[in-house]
Amino acid sequence: MSITPPPKALLFDVFGTCVDWRQSIIREGEAIARQQGLSGIDWAGFADAWRSRYQPQMESVRIGSRIWVTLDVLHRESFDLLLPQFGLKSIPDDVRFDFNRAWHRLDPWPDTSRALHSLKTRFIIAPNSNGHIALQVNLAKHGNLPWDAILGAEIATAYKPQSEVYLRSIAALDLTPSEVMMVAAHNGDLIAASALGMKTAFIARPHEHGPNQTTDLTPEAEYDLVATDLLDLAAQLGVTT
Amino acid sequence: MSITPPPKALLFDVFGTCVDWRQSIIREGEAIARQQGLSGIDWAGFADAWRSRYQPQMESVRIGSRIWVTLDVLHRESFDLLLPQFGLKSIPDDVRFDFNRAWHRLDPWPDTSRALHSLKTRFIIAPNSNGHIALQVNLAKHGNLPWDAILGAEIATAYKPQSEVYLRSIAALDLTPSEVMMVAAHNGDLIAASALGMKTAFIARPHEHGPNQTTDLTPEAEYDLVATDLLDLAAQLGVTT
Repeated sequence: MSITPPPKALLFDVFGTCVDWRQSIIREGEAIARQQGLSGIDWAGFADAWRSRYQPQMESVRIGSRIWVTLDVLHRESFDLLLPQFGLKSIPDDVRFDFNRAWHRLDPWPDTSRALHSLKTRFIIAPNSNGHIALQVNLAKHGNLPWDAILGAEIATAYKPQSEVYLRSIAALDLTPSEVMMVAAHNGDLIAASALGMKTAFIARPHEHGPNQTTDLTPEAEYDLVATDLLDLAAQLGVTT
Repeated sequence: MSITPPPKALLFDVFGTCVDWRQSIIREGEAIARQQGLSGIDWAGFADAWRSRYQPQMESVRIGSRIWVTLDVLHRESFDLLLPQFGLKSIPDDVRFDFNRAWHRLDPWPDTSRALHSLKTRFIIAPNSNGHIALQVNLAKHGNLPWDAILGAEIATAYKPQSEVYLRSIAALDLTPSEVMMVAAHNGDLIAASALGMKTAFIARPHEHGPNQTTDLTPEAEYDLVATDLLDLAAQLGVTT
């Protein structure tokens, strides 16, 4: 491994980096359409619209316009707002509740589970995500993600890229920023981590936003590692998968 | 399984219930004695004296006489205080620092790792301990304890049996008290959990305090389950080990 000294812990972004939220939401939408007898719904458009409300909603927490709430709350507000536009107003409340929990059942990318099992043998691994603890536990059960701990937004009651999230997760491990590597598919996340003195690894996820993705296709700053997926990250860190 | 409906998550006490702190501290003490050329030290007495300061120290946090600090801080204060009495004043500072971290390297009881791996296939499993996140992560790495999340004192900034610790851990899983079972070898822990509506399982650890243990030998209240060890708990919960 080219990084000396090696990190002691790897913290992971999850949505987009470890799991494919877009295809998973489309899959869940199609299942609900079958169950509810709905047809002609633009599920890809719905997934993108749902996700596009994510940053503005977290921003209201970041700037202090509302107290910290979990993504279940933020996701549900967006969901209810989007239903008329996508012809989904007929969905009953219990189904809405369950569909909102689709974010707890996102499928991992094909490389994720195997890579994390290998990386866990050498490093402490934990999510440093804006997803709350229950969501991350459920994602881990669903996708066989063997985290050593669930860190991130909930223990900081803040949302990335606020520095509290990174620093609280690092402190929870009793480590220093330079002993911890942030692993993400998003330049903004890594630039925030790097500014705090963390090591950084960029993972290319060129289809997170579908076939026509235009953002985060390449590293836009200097990172310690750049990898094609998490198996490649493991290989570059000297871990056999 | 006789419990209907079954719990969705199992929360575990760790010191004494999952790991054998007393023999582990004795083992670490003997290693330091060899390294430092010390002889005739009563390591069992030292381990007991160190642990005996645990409850009074946490009580100062519980009653609000000091802010919440991690067990590393509380353990180190007790350690420094006990050194003269046990003929250990010659131990240099770097060795003291490392010895204090012996609480991160406690060995599990022989049944713990195998039982947790099996229980994890059916339930969410997490420590609900007074040990902080870094300590629990290190114990898990040392003893192969496959927790789904690290809950407990640090995310509540309180110490059991304060109700905040149980309730914060339950809330982190987005569950209700009756959906969660507290597993412990200590009656006080289980009585506190039961009062909040949690399910309870008593695990007999009759040698936690050595051969002459007088406390927590038997269940002293009505619990949902009483087990001889964690493999027996798994069997009673219908999980094959």
